[in-house]
Amino acid sequence: MAELPAAATTSVLAAACGGRVVGDGSLVVEGVRSLENAGPHDLAFAVDARAEAAASVSSAGVLLARSAGRFPGRTVIEVSDPSAALAAVLASVFPQRMARPGLHPTAIVEAGARVAPGAEIGPYAVVGEGSEVADGAILEAHVVVGRRCRIAAGAWLHPHVVLYDGVNVGARTEVHSGAVLGADGFGYAPGPAGLRKVPQVGGVEIGSDAEIGANSCIDRATLELTRVGNGTKVDDLVMIGHNCDVGRHVVLCGQTGLAGSTTVGDQTVLGGQVGVGGHLRIGKGVKAGGQTGISSDVPDGASISGRPHLPYRDALRVQAELKRLPETARVVRELAKAAKGDEVKG
Amino acid sequence: MAELPAAATTSVLAAACGGRVVGDGSLVVEGVRSLENAGPHDLAFAVDARAEAAASVSSAGVLLARSAGRFPGRTVIEVSDPSAALAAVLASVFPQRMARPGLHPTAIVEAGARVAPGAEIGPYAVVGEGSEVADGAILEAHVVVGRRCRIAAGAWLHPHVVLYDGVNVGARTEVHSGAVLGADGFGYAPGPAGLRKVPQVGGVEIGSDAEIGANSCIDRATLELTRVGNGTKVDDLVMIGHNCDVGRHVVLCGQTGLAGSTTVGDQTVLGGQVGVGGHLRIGKGVKAGGQTGISSDVPDGASISGRPHLPYRDALRVQAELKRLPETARVVRELAKAAKGDEVKG
Amino acid sequence: MAELPAAATTSVLAAACGGRVVGDGSLVVEGVRSLENAGPHDLAFAVDARAEAAASVSSAGVLLARSAGRFPGRTVIEVSDPSAALAAVLASVFPQRMARPGLHPTAIVEAGARVAPGAEIGPYAVVGEGSEVADGAILEAHVVVGRRCRIAAGAWLHPHVVLYDGVNVGARTEVHSGAVLGADGFGYAPGPAGLRKVPQVGGVEIGSDAEIGANSCIDRATLELTRVGNGTKVDDLVMIGHNCDVGRHVVLCGQTGLAGSTTVGDQTVLGGQVGVGGHLRIGKGVKAGGQTGISSDVPDGASISGRPHLPYRDALRVQAELKRLPETARVVRELAKAAKGDEVKG
Repeated sequence: MAELPAAATTSVLAAACGGRVVGDGSLVVEGVRSLENAGPHDLAFAVDARAEAAASVSSAGVLLARSAGRFPGRTVIEVSDPSAALAAVLASVFPQRMARPGLHPTAIVEAGARVAPGAEIGPYAVVGEGSEVADGAILEAHVVVGRRCRIAAGAWLHPHVVLYDGVNVGARTEVHSGAVLGADGFGYAPGPAGLRKVPQVGGVEIGSDAEIGANSCIDRATLELTRVGNGTKVDDLVMIGHNCDVGRHVVLCGQTGLAGSTTVGDQTVLGGQVGVGGHLRIGKGVKAGGQTGISSDVPDGASISGRPHLPYRDALRVQAELKRLPETARVVRELAKAAKGDEVKG
Repeated sequence: MAELPAAATTSVLAAACGGRVVGDGSLVVEGVRSLENAGPHDLAFAVDARAEAAASVSSAGVLLARSAGRFPGRTVIEVSDPSAALAAVLASVFPQRMARPGLHPTAIVEAGARVAPGAEIGPYAVVGEGSEVADGAILEAHVVVGRRCRIAAGAWLHPHVVLYDGVNVGARTEVHSGAVLGADGFGYAPGPAGLRKVPQVGGVEIGSDAEIGANSCIDRATLELTRVGNGTKVDDLVMIGHNCDVGRHVVLCGQTGLAGSTTVGDQTVLGGQVGVGGHLRIGKGVKAGGQTGISSDVPDGASISGRPHLPYRDALRVQAELKRLPETARVVRELAKAAKGDEVKG
Repeated sequence: MAELPAAATTSVLAAACGGRVVGDGSLVVEGVRSLENAGPHDLAFAVDARAEAAASVSSAGVLLARSAGRFPGRTVIEVSDPSAALAAVLASVFPQRMARPGLHPTAIVEAGARVAPGAEIGPYAVVGEGSEVADGAILEAHVVVGRRCRIAAGAWLHPHVVLYDGVNVGARTEVHSGAVLGADGFGYAPGPAGLRKVPQVGGVEIGSDAEIGANSCIDRATLELTRVGNGTKVDDLVMIGHNCDVGRHVVLCGQTGLAGSTTVGDQTVLGGQVGVGGHLRIGKGVKAGGQTGISSDVPDGASISGRPHLPYRDALRVQAELKRLPETARVVRELAKAAKGDEVKG
């Protein structure tokens, strides 16, 4: 699949990732592929011991690996972190999509909206009144931007992204297709004729260098701003409720949801399908396993798992005992029966 | 953020929410903000004891609170329910978005579709054959309405909403961006060459005054109608399977899913990420905590939690014991060992 | 709801599903409805014993059922599998939507894209450079297809589907509204300035006769292809992470998620809200109950449930004991207390 747009020598690729060539630096690489599929003109990477075993039988012409020692006679680019090196290699050979400045003839820019000359506005995109799109920003086909939004330099909105009014997207931030930023928060007050909607008149602010996954939803705040910090990565189908404040360099994996008014500290990583209750404080550097249910505050640096969430090691112990629970309960019933017999005998 | 479109005196805002002014009724309010961010010309609200503590140190010029007694010397609008009062204040100062009657020149209205003169059809919206859009309804940019749909008066479809054929949306109901109403239910029958699709030829009916969240999916029925009742509020990324019948004034929080043919009674509240099996009957006035797994019928008025779901108090007890399970199991093993020793000795 | 486009006799419908008429084969059927709503000119179906009880008091003119014996004096179409027969009946009377060949005047086909003369391209659809759309394929309104995609014969993309670059959709495969195929996988490597994105330069390949639900997301591979096999059915709001390989005739129910690089064997069925970790191997013919959490490999043919996942019967036992856990723990505490008393006495 990943055929290089232009072939490159092993030495050039090594330079791109700061690696050291062992073997033939002049070997020409035409593609980057998986260990299974790579051929003599492909580069493949081995991230850990399991992959190194596969690498030793791979036909890849060049290996990106921690050490050439395991691969005698092969051409290897030695690097300390093969994942990071792969990112560097790919970034060097697959050029980043850059804005092709201009408005597609079908794009609609409403009165009072300002689109910088270096921005690209795709087919059928709509930019609402009073919104600003900076240089280098890309609005792909069918993007709808509401009123009074700000799209910073180099931001990239994929097809079908929707921004409601008053949403800001930071520089170089990428928003994937179908993501909805700024829909009303889920706020109601009881009233005589059923629930009464609390108007959601705040906004959303996404920092710079962030990434928001496909079909994810980040609701607008009731009064202030729902925030997602710089460098934070949000996967697909994630929900961030109104008034949340998600820090910097946070990772929220697929289908995770935060109820309203919760804060998440910098560098925290929540696995897939995690659920976080409302009005909670999740600290910095927290790690939560997939499907964790978080219903109380979590201190900085905690590793947690399970529902109810527990420190990771405790959760593992609970899980192990849970599997044994039927046997444990059987023993308890026998002991209780024996004790009752003793009592009778006693 | 929430700067008022036009400043208003404290007395005017008190009248809007039926509150009593203690202090300076002529004080001019320019914004509604959080307790942390409010200044001398802002109103902020204190919903409970924790918020009242924050309110006492807030710089807000006006407080919306249950009692002025805790805030000597401050200007307070006293109300019995601060959340409901906030809803009333915001609704009074932020005017509801009303239809701007007319068709955008890029809107497509297919043959036999009828759009009332008081409806607003936005850029690139498409209304299919035989569909009807009533006065006051708003179809924002890029909304796609299939054939034979009915959009009642004052309904509001946000950008990128999709209605398949034969979907009805009730009066004043709001549907947020990316929601898909009427996609085929997930129905298959085993056949000689794998699964065979059961054609889904029913429809979807959403009542009046309902709200459907961003990117939620409500599938069409196999033969009849998938129903969502009047006043029901559905959050983002919720799935309602085919043939479901969801009652009135129900609340379904984010990422919750109902499998097919399940009924949910009036006024029931399901927390976030709840999963409900197919062909179940969930009663009226049920409350289910976040991430509850419901795999059997639930009686009217039950409060439940956990997976498998239990009455709320029982679920709390199970959760508490679950945390202690490794210790409990250790005690059981010791007791069993001692009992075995007794046997040997005996 | 499900009024037939043209009335048909019972005999004709019986022929369509290979059934045997007991009663009046000339009875004219005008609609197919639920047992509750069917009238004397409607057909209704009874799939199991519960439905047969409802059928005996239904006003349906014709019943589709396993045996006429339970319904003396009624007109019955006897079939071995009423669900499969219903599928056949509906397919015979509700004609499949076929392509209406041609490009809507507002459709945009970019340079180098090839649209076959028998394909239908709807309003505002966009087909990117170098993509191919085969005969009989339907791209509904607002579909966006990226560059170098291939849409095979008879594939049907509903309104607002998005394909990123390099996505292939197989013959007769149906993709529902809001689905996003080919968004970037969630791959990052740690770097000096926070996380660094690993460019996702692979693609997505969906087989033939598959169905992808509304608002589901299937991410592109890092280097190779994320795959979904022939005949596989994916429900709404499902996430399939990058590099996954999902087999043939697999069923993934609503809101289920697969993390990256996981393989799922042919004919496997995962219930709703199931979560599957990354780099796992789920075998063929596996069945997993709703909300199962899968964090390790699963062998072919296993039936599993729970979190952590266990064989189905074991999971049921664990669930049963979990409900009793508070009582079990109380007994343990009493036994421990008694044992301590014995020690003191002893």
